[in-house]
Amino acid sequence: MNGWAHGRHGLVERERKAIMLDGTVRIQAECLKDFVAQVFGRLGVPWADAQITAEVLVAADLRGIESHGVQRLGRYVGRLKKGLIQPVAEVRLVRDRTATLLLDGGNGLGQVVGSRAMELCVEKAKEAGAAFVVVRNSNHYGIAGYYAMLALRHDMVGLSFTNARPLVVPTYGREPLIGTNPISIAVPAGRERPFVLDMATSVVPSGKIEMAARKGERIPLGWAVDVEGRPTQDPGAVLSGGSLLPLGGSAEFAGYKGYGLSVMVDILCGVLSGAAFGRGVEAPVDGCEGPSRVGHFFAALQVEAFRPLEEFTRDMDRMIWALRNSGKAQGETRIFIHGEKEFEAEEARRRLGIPLHPSVYASLREIGEEVGVGLEAGGG
Amino acid sequence: MNGWAHGRHGLVERERKAIMLDGTVRIQAECLKDFVAQVFGRLGVPWADAQITAEVLVAADLRGIESHGVQRLGRYVGRLKKGLIQPVAEVRLVRDRTATLLLDGGNGLGQVVGSRAMELCVEKAKEAGAAFVVVRNSNHYGIAGYYAMLALRHDMVGLSFTNARPLVVPTYGREPLIGTNPISIAVPAGRERPFVLDMATSVVPSGKIEMAARKGERIPLGWAVDVEGRPTQDPGAVLSGGSLLPLGGSAEFAGYKGYGLSVMVDILCGVLSGAAFGRGVEAPVDGCEGPSRVGHFFAALQVEAFRPLEEFTRDMDRMIWALRNSGKAQGETRIFIHGEKEFEAEEARRRLGIPLHPSVYASLREIGEEVGVGLEAGGG
Repeated sequence: MNGWAHGRHGLVERERKAIMLDGTVRIQAECLKDFVAQVFGRLGVPWADAQITAEVLVAADLRGIESHGVQRLGRYVGRLKKGLIQPVAEVRLVRDRTATLLLDGGNGLGQVVGSRAMELCVEKAKEAGAAFVVVRNSNHYGIAGYYAMLALRHDMVGLSFTNARPLVVPTYGREPLIGTNPISIAVPAGRERPFVLDMATSVVPSGKIEMAARKGERIPLGWAVDVEGRPTQDPGAVLSGGSLLPLGGSAEFAGYKGYGLSVMVDILCGVLSGAAFGRGVEAPVDGCEGPSRVGHFFAALQVEAFRPLEEFTRDMDRMIWALRNSGKAQGETRIFIHGEKEFEAEEARRRLGIPLHPSVYASLREIGEEVGVGLEAGGG
Repeated sequence: MNGWAHGRHGLVERERKAIMLDGTVRIQAECLKDFVAQVFGRLGVPWADAQITAEVLVAADLRGIESHGVQRLGRYVGRLKKGLIQPVAEVRLVRDRTATLLLDGGNGLGQVVGSRAMELCVEKAKEAGAAFVVVRNSNHYGIAGYYAMLALRHDMVGLSFTNARPLVVPTYGREPLIGTNPISIAVPAGRERPFVLDMATSVVPSGKIEMAARKGERIPLGWAVDVEGRPTQDPGAVLSGGSLLPLGGSAEFAGYKGYGLSVMVDILCGVLSGAAFGRGVEAPVDGCEGPSRVGHFFAALQVEAFRPLEEFTRDMDRMIWALRNSGKAQGETRIFIHGEKEFEAEEARRRLGIPLHPSVYASLREIGEEVGVGLEAGGG
């Protein structure tokens, strides 16, 4: 039981909404979503767009990917207030072919731009069987998986990539030139839940290094390097000028593959779209902060363009069943399917509420107070 | 100098063609290609298809990927002789949409099916801006990168995936249920060579385990597991019932990401096409060998559908330059771009000939003798 509970943030009065459990503040997803949407609304974001942005952020918290959830709200708010993100996303169609689209995100919120892009991708795929949409001039869009999953309700396979600020070294390098550039794919199944891969192309996200540093723990050799590009177990050495290693880690464990995947994502999101790439993503221009110039890449494939849906989903179920029920390694009891943990987290959190760390809860209330939105205001 | 040089394989008479250097037999690429094509021709493969198959196999040797080169000739020949691969590939169009195609490979040689599929993909992409082609009922198609690179001459980005027989465990598993399922992408550049990623989704290919076993060496912990799913350094324990680990290795180093990528490839190649997937790929049916039922997945994206080609290739050059010239890790002198090593190998081998291990050379001559083709017969 932490000090925060005893009135410091006025929680006593809010017990009805914010239930303390295991040291976290629990808030219903809809309540949290409405709060976030109202905050964006007060900052000039049109209500429909504010709702989309809130939806994507809260989806991350529901799915247990807190690093991309409402704890990032302050960053978006900060960039909106500084005029570094346009509250009204004027998404512009730059090039349009039967199965492709290039969009300019107008420096709007990545969640708004990304959702619109994926919807257009799905529309094109309905006509052409499949489609690609590439986006420039956008911003951090939250969890890549959200957009890939938009394809599911249309019985399509969805793909979603984004580039991101450079935190990862190329193999044999010491300067971070590539982002944790995630790859996500969502595939419908039948009786089973969909297969949803949503992975950074680094071994670990930077949050894991920060957490180890906070706890005073060492990190496994192969996660990251120091400022000289040497593998290190000291999270402090990573945070002071070091970098993350690409998936695989060192060259001996084929880290050049993760490096290659990260560059692939950067090419498809950054170079193909005319967005920033490499060192240029989210980088300050001439010492002053500028737009992030993030790029995204989406694809949608209609299952029925290839196979009858029932055959496809039946085989997906069989594949998932075979993986889950295959022999376990000594000492292990469960083989996971990608997305499974997140679906389970979502089910639990829809029931019990989203657990927020007290410091996150406090920071949200602070953000809300600044723009005149109470965290309890949207409670259902 | 090994015993093979002293007449055992009759090399003395062939010195004009097979130049001994560093213990290898060097053969000009065109000569080797013609030999391989003639072998396939004698086995009933139409001449144009035989040439394509030879082209793909020799391309692997030229690029330094020997594991997928002519040393595999015996396996293809064996399957052709047993009637497990159809010499005449009757590639059939199953479903056709504006930007998608499903092909049935008619159990033909994977190289023939793959090349035809990628050509059709490029044709579709010319019209639609981009296209996907998915293939079922095919066979091992050699290096994935060959097909991705077919897009380059059309100023397109090419993607090529294939599933393969199961050799890799899912994270926390002990049974191999997924293949080394490669991912390849080829991207045109301007003054720089194209970016060509061609990677198995396992940490290492099985060849590396076999090589360590032959040399009596131990393998790094994190490459593979034994029959109980325990990480092992003993290559023998891997070869006797063990499995490879997916890219990343153990869960601590995010091996579930490599596992996810491998499943993604299996879904796109196997499930989406109606080919075999998981344990079913290349698996004997009822104890008798049957067709491999391999599936492939191709995509092509026209650069001009998104950006003017010159802008795109200029930015590719900049990205490559920035990576290559960024700071090196302590003790390192070079940062590689994907495909660079392979292009350099190809340049050297086109000049000096392809180096074959004497045992590979001997086995090729044996295969040739069986069907009445001399290895020197195609010499230029």
